[in-house]
Amino acid sequence: MADYSIGVDLGGTNLRAAAMTAEGTLVEQVSVPTGVSSGREVVVNHLVDVVNKLRTSQGQVPAGIGVGVPGFIDLERGVITGSANMPGFENFPGRDELSNRLGVPIVLENDANAAALGEKWMGAGRDVDDLVLLTLGTGVGGGIIHRGAVMHGFLGMAAELGHVTVVPNGNPCGCGNHGCLEKHASATAVESMAHLMGLGEALTAKQVFDLASQGNKLAQQVFESMGISLGTAIASFINIFNFPLYLLAGGVVDAWPLFAPAMLAEVERRSFTYRNSKTRIEKARLGKDSGLYGAAYLPFLNRAY
Amino acid sequence: MADYSIGVDLGGTNLRAAAMTAEGTLVEQVSVPTGVSSGREVVVNHLVDVVNKLRTSQGQVPAGIGVGVPGFIDLERGVITGSANMPGFENFPGRDELSNRLGVPIVLENDANAAALGEKWMGAGRDVDDLVLLTLGTGVGGGIIHRGAVMHGFLGMAAELGHVTVVPNGNPCGCGNHGCLEKHASATAVESMAHLMGLGEALTAKQVFDLASQGNKLAQQVFESMGISLGTAIASFINIFNFPLYLLAGGVVDAWPLFAPAMLAEVERRSFTYRNSKTRIEKARLGKDSGLYGAAYLPFLNRAY
Repeated sequence: MADYSIGVDLGGTNLRAAAMTAEGTLVEQVSVPTGVSSGREVVVNHLVDVVNKLRTSQGQVPAGIGVGVPGFIDLERGVITGSANMPGFENFPGRDELSNRLGVPIVLENDANAAALGEKWMGAGRDVDDLVLLTLGTGVGGGIIHRGAVMHGFLGMAAELGHVTVVPNGNPCGCGNHGCLEKHASATAVESMAHLMGLGEALTAKQVFDLASQGNKLAQQVFESMGISLGTAIASFINIFNFPLYLLAGGVVDAWPLFAPAMLAEVERRSFTYRNSKTRIEKARLGKDSGLYGAAYLPFLNRAY
Repeated sequence: MADYSIGVDLGGTNLRAAAMTAEGTLVEQVSVPTGVSSGREVVVNHLVDVVNKLRTSQGQVPAGIGVGVPGFIDLERGVITGSANMPGFENFPGRDELSNRLGVPIVLENDANAAALGEKWMGAGRDVDDLVLLTLGTGVGGGIIHRGAVMHGFLGMAAELGHVTVVPNGNPCGCGNHGCLEKHASATAVESMAHLMGLGEALTAKQVFDLASQGNKLAQQVFESMGISLGTAIASFINIFNFPLYLLAGGVVDAWPLFAPAMLAEVERRSFTYRNSKTRIEKARLGKDSGLYGAAYLPFLNRAY
């Protein structure tokens, strides 16, 4: 069997793929627009083309292909059961369709789980077997690694960490809850708080970040509020898991200097386990490649089972 | 090796022990006052006497002895590192001292973890591999079973579920946090809420329960408030773990009819995973014996590793 695999990060904007060795060396990388608006068949064709390109240039069949997908996956059947960002993929039997077209074993995984796995394999979690990862983007995703593997729950719905309650009567969430972490600590939450602070119409999270960096106190308060919500959630995760490592990934992590002090103070206050242990809370190290590494690791991990 | 083990539940009031077969049949049970106020040496002597009594009547050496302890345990060293209810046991090397005196392998475990394990072995969790258990007593303890074994965390401090934040600016907790679950959903919390409702001086949780059962609206509100806090926490646990089963144990569970409707409504509202799955939230089935069964299971579980 080949000693390399192909990881695919099926993002809402870009479809990225890479050939990687079993030791975690990225050999070759390709990125194309996902083309979500053109429909599922086009996206699948893009994926097949990209994989075939990598396979041709590697000159041999890969051990397998791992695909990180922004949605829920029925692992047993290999079916994407729901995806907010990829309309048309609901109930798509991705594993079998792709493996039929590519002639190689396919492993599907939720994208935040894949990111957590990538960090465990080649990122900030290389030296631990247990970690929790939060992806801070438009929403907040989560991945939990326990004993080196993804914790899936009995229906593959585990680690919906963005929907943990941090403010019991907080902002409403599409999931039906109020005060979900992702409504108080995502790029969207930053934008809505900036609006509430009267900072301007329709500012992006990046613009709020720039204002705060330039010394705007109201914008700084927005990131402090985000830090407090993150800290509240992470303190509970520490009290629940007592894992050695908690990682933050995603675009909003660039604002670390603005939200981390409030976040860490909140964790310090709310978790005696944190105060009495060497628990690490850090930025993920592989940047936007965490999920790509995790996807490429999937075929090797499966082989070891 | 013998086909029976001895489980010990080292409670603050009673020290209970039982001989059980590897199939989970309780063969013989003994209970004596723990004697905490007489000091550690007396407690240890009680434990040794009780175990020897069971061993003599069984006529053979047990496979091992499991001991459920109300405190933190350094599993690697077999040392009780802290216990609020058992002064004098801090830094007691229980595993080695007991195994020296009894000549049999000893396995220590936190009492709430043991209760979770007991329910998995012979109680409500027999048919699942993953569950979360909350013990509702003076405080709130927790135990997490994943793939049939206790989740310990890297320092044995996992599952401090009573210290998850449910009310960000809620009641202060000795752990340093505010709004811990155990300050809003334990017997002590029921008593303090009854006081706030002007129901009388120094009522016990049982008396508040009796008032509520007799139709007292204020006392009923106390249990509804407890249910809302429990539901908030359990909804987050479901969103985190996606386990099939969440169990409530401990004395306060007798008030189930008074708090469960509010609890279940809150979970329904706060967890889309709950609404979209057959997730069970139930009372533990082994009553005050959950921890005793779990303790007796420990030597068999260890053997299988």
